[in-house]
Amino acid sequence: MQKNLLNQIDSPKDLRLLKQKDLPQLAKELREFIINIVATKEGHLGASLGVVELTIALHYVFNTPEDQLVWDVGHQAYGHKILTARKNNFETNRQLGGLSGFPKRDESIFDTFGVGHASTSISAALGMAIASRLKGDLEKQHIAVIGDASIAGGMAFEGLNHAGVTKANLLVILNDNAIGIDPSVGALKLYLTNVKKGTQKQDNIFEALNFDYSGPIDGHDLDAVIAELQRLKTVQGPKFLHIITTKGKGLKQAEKDQVKYHAPGKFNAQTGDIPVKATTIQPPKYQDVFGHTIVELAKENKNIVGITPAMPTGSSLKFMMDSLPDRAFDVGIAEQHAVTLAAGMATQGLIPFCNIYSTFLQRAYDQIIHDVALQNLPVIFCLDRAGLVGEDGATHHGVYDLSYLRCIPNLIIFAPRNEVELRNIMYTAQLGLKQPIAIRYPRGRGVIIDWKQGFTKINIAEAVILQEGENIAVLSIGTMAKNVSEAITNLNVSHYDMRFVKPLDETLLHRICKTHHTIITVEDNSVRGGFGSAILEFMAEHKYTNTIKLLGIPDTFIEHGKVTQLQQSIGLDPESLKVFIENI
Amino acid sequence: MQKNLLNQIDSPKDLRLLKQKDLPQLAKELREFIINIVATKEGHLGASLGVVELTIALHYVFNTPEDQLVWDVGHQAYGHKILTARKNNFETNRQLGGLSGFPKRDESIFDTFGVGHASTSISAALGMAIASRLKGDLEKQHIAVIGDASIAGGMAFEGLNHAGVTKANLLVILNDNAIGIDPSVGALKLYLTNVKKGTQKQDNIFEALNFDYSGPIDGHDLDAVIAELQRLKTVQGPKFLHIITTKGKGLKQAEKDQVKYHAPGKFNAQTGDIPVKATTIQPPKYQDVFGHTIVELAKENKNIVGITPAMPTGSSLKFMMDSLPDRAFDVGIAEQHAVTLAAGMATQGLIPFCNIYSTFLQRAYDQIIHDVALQNLPVIFCLDRAGLVGEDGATHHGVYDLSYLRCIPNLIIFAPRNEVELRNIMYTAQLGLKQPIAIRYPRGRGVIIDWKQGFTKINIAEAVILQEGENIAVLSIGTMAKNVSEAITNLNVSHYDMRFVKPLDETLLHRICKTHHTIITVEDNSVRGGFGSAILEFMAEHKYTNTIKLLGIPDTFIEHGKVTQLQQSIGLDPESLKVFIENI
Repeated sequence: MQKNLLNQIDSPKDLRLLKQKDLPQLAKELREFIINIVATKEGHLGASLGVVELTIALHYVFNTPEDQLVWDVGHQAYGHKILTARKNNFETNRQLGGLSGFPKRDESIFDTFGVGHASTSISAALGMAIASRLKGDLEKQHIAVIGDASIAGGMAFEGLNHAGVTKANLLVILNDNAIGIDPSVGALKLYLTNVKKGTQKQDNIFEALNFDYSGPIDGHDLDAVIAELQRLKTVQGPKFLHIITTKGKGLKQAEKDQVKYHAPGKFNAQTGDIPVKATTIQPPKYQDVFGHTIVELAKENKNIVGITPAMPTGSSLKFMMDSLPDRAFDVGIAEQHAVTLAAGMATQGLIPFCNIYSTFLQRAYDQIIHDVALQNLPVIFCLDRAGLVGEDGATHHGVYDLSYLRCIPNLIIFAPRNEVELRNIMYTAQLGLKQPIAIRYPRGRGVIIDWKQGFTKINIAEAVILQEGENIAVLSIGTMAKNVSEAITNLNVSHYDMRFVKPLDETLLHRICKTHHTIITVEDNSVRGGFGSAILEFMAEHKYTNTIKLLGIPDTFIEHGKVTQLQQSIGLDPESLKVFIENI
Repeated sequence: MQKNLLNQIDSPKDLRLLKQKDLPQLAKELREFIINIVATKEGHLGASLGVVELTIALHYVFNTPEDQLVWDVGHQAYGHKILTARKNNFETNRQLGGLSGFPKRDESIFDTFGVGHASTSISAALGMAIASRLKGDLEKQHIAVIGDASIAGGMAFEGLNHAGVTKANLLVILNDNAIGIDPSVGALKLYLTNVKKGTQKQDNIFEALNFDYSGPIDGHDLDAVIAELQRLKTVQGPKFLHIITTKGKGLKQAEKDQVKYHAPGKFNAQTGDIPVKATTIQPPKYQDVFGHTIVELAKENKNIVGITPAMPTGSSLKFMMDSLPDRAFDVGIAEQHAVTLAAGMATQGLIPFCNIYSTFLQRAYDQIIHDVALQNLPVIFCLDRAGLVGEDGATHHGVYDLSYLRCIPNLIIFAPRNEVELRNIMYTAQLGLKQPIAIRYPRGRGVIIDWKQGFTKINIAEAVILQEGENIAVLSIGTMAKNVSEAITNLNVSHYDMRFVKPLDETLLHRICKTHHTIITVEDNSVRGGFGSAILEFMAEHKYTNTIKLLGIPDTFIEHGKVTQLQQSIGLDPESLKVFIENI
């Protein structure tokens, strides 16, 4: 019986004691380990399977953690975590109090830079490399591993452009598998494909940017990858290694359906099959309500177009890409471009729905202000994954958008409390709004099974009265209405779904302030500058002195865990809200 | 006497009636017109002089405004404005109520897209081109004119990467003069230089991205430019024209000292000489206090490094680039990269001062949250041009930073009220702060002539009492302290310079709330979510019911004009503040 190599490895030091000929066996074991755990505990699968050999080779050749290894995005870093002293608690991955699903500095000295958003690795590793050079350390290696989807993000180009004029000891490894979460797009991807096919000559874009380029080589050929890394270790200055890998490598279904097996949920570790879920009827995901509704609206209104930066599946814009392919655009990991493209389209009378996750819209903040709002162009932003997103954790929670959008003149900000409201605001926005609007809604499912109802126009700035009671008024925004409703079922308090964070329903607010001694605001956004602060500003302006308490995301980064667990931890679950209100 | 051609042109239609052989004469007149007006009225000179021929050629060949012309940044668009019905009021350029210094949709149908920040033109023009295609208009032309500094911004790459896989009728013109405001940097610039020299072959980066590339051609050769534009007009799909120009062309000094003549202030239109200013001793510019102080500190603390994205002159980081060149980095127009580079450096124990104009930091918002604050890395952000910037107008005011930064956990936010405070907080920040800090200060000069004093450590969260009076407390932030001090000279009210927007001086705030019935906050940031809102949140948390009034930038975009004029228009000048306080 062949001995288990993986069990002998507590850290890369142990790995480096192995003979090179034993590494394919280790790769096999590591792949099985990842599959077995992700099959039951869930998580990101395909990306890590694709870099098993690269991960082993990197830790085998380089002197980690002294040498600095940065994984772009980090979906692919499970193997890295398992080889760097986290094998035994890897089953806690993405759970409350457990390992993060992404590299994280607090978690391990081997995680040199926290990641989660794309295209940061080259800049970070270059910063490290320049630091080493300034300290006179010319031996230390600095490696950024970046995928072909991420390298198309503008920030990665900025990093390459700078690195190319330095002497920094930087190795950029392009993990080229032709896919991010969805298949990669764009001219650079076409170009890379041609390089692979040999129809594009080798002295290429990366050489033009002054990198010492090598490749493309087979990223699953351990000997080839190790040989090339060993050679590159001796090359000073910026260098670029292009490797070709297969996302999902080693699990047949994952190789075949790479989008589904990016993060497949539970599956059968032996067969790879994903169990068919029981067909109990559930409310839809908000993303699907968006996806179906934009198709429905676009069939009636020929000016509607849809834009997603690399999230066709996650946003469900894919529905429109399938049914109206000329009018739905996946622009790749390019949030800045997505927003200004939408602005350009809007100048010509098109009605762009620009769908970006709340956390990723942070990437296009200047473009919203400068290219959309300043020109008052009626772009419709749909911010998916707003609020707490759960297991993806601190890098992915969308808990700042209300704060960073609220200071932008001209912009309407709306949060639907359910699917019907989402549909109706989408309908309203495309009727001929004369200004931009941001519509924020959460990850996951809504609350209404019979959600596909006829459209009703929503009056801008009009809030909704959900319950009228005495003394205490609870003002909620978006889907926090559900938690509040559960909390106050048996309490004689008022509850208003304000819907619009901007402009506020001032008529109703005057009435609320005059008829309640205490106001409580509830939001799944930071309590710094968010919805609650908007109410404070209104009250200050009109000299109301009601007692007011702001509930929301505290001024600290929230880690990963189930959304319900996270809500409990910060007092936003129904039970905590109930106790809070009862004790006013 | 030769007749004046420029006088005959009210719009491009008139231009297109001229014979091609007369255009060099028109170019000469247009250049003189620009020089004569900018010499006395001030403004951006060099960029527009460099594209006189291109501007004429574009309006001559293309059917503007039907064909859509987008100028990147827009410093170079003076000739465009003069030829498009704004000749007669061009002398109002950049003045209150006058023409904007940048293309602006409200101002003219020829200004198809408002600009000011770099690297947006390709995305905007692509959006327009896709819109035309969707409408079935295959004749309409869409042109983005972008400089070699701007095209290095990541967003431009995102636009190119998308455009290359479309059939959109897009022409990108690279106006390559090897300089932005300061000389261009980066690997792409090197590459372009080699293309010009013929050492880099023609099938190049832009062809790799699927553009039909032509050039490089002499951008001052009107016949050559016109011939090439006429040819390109018949080419469908994305195409790229590379032209070589000289910034400042036609004014000897402007060609020679391109940085100084980017925006030279008043000068002699005949000789080009800039009058030597009388040597009355004045307080320094804040940027120079930054520039001198970082050099002073860096000479003592070897871990300090300085970073600027393409603003070495504007930020005065140039002082450090001259005296400590290994430790001061101009990374080009790449704000995202600049911030994450700083984060990478901080992981290795360096102390990065990352200097970015407030308005441009909007470009790196995600990187501050995700790469710096979430990892609690002690990067020191110096935000120059915070508050109202004056003549550059709506695209350049830095009036949102307090709002968008305040919701970020871990981040300290400080605003010095004078030069000594700026020096002291820079000194304090590099002593070993364990978290990131943003220091925001305005454009222009300070108030202290004898500013170069010894350093004093500032206690984090400690405010300053400037005047103690009765009933009314004025809380100011940053240099608004000066206006407040002037306003209350003869009033019996209290005045506190809070200095830290985050964390707040809670001890002092408790005392203030207990001893004054009315609180007035004064800031040169939006009143939505800014400093005033922070005070509101504190008061709500502690159940204070004092009357409070927030003064600051109203929730609307502020146009261009002198800072004093703009302050008057929104009630932030000393006289308005005085009247306001007296009438409480």
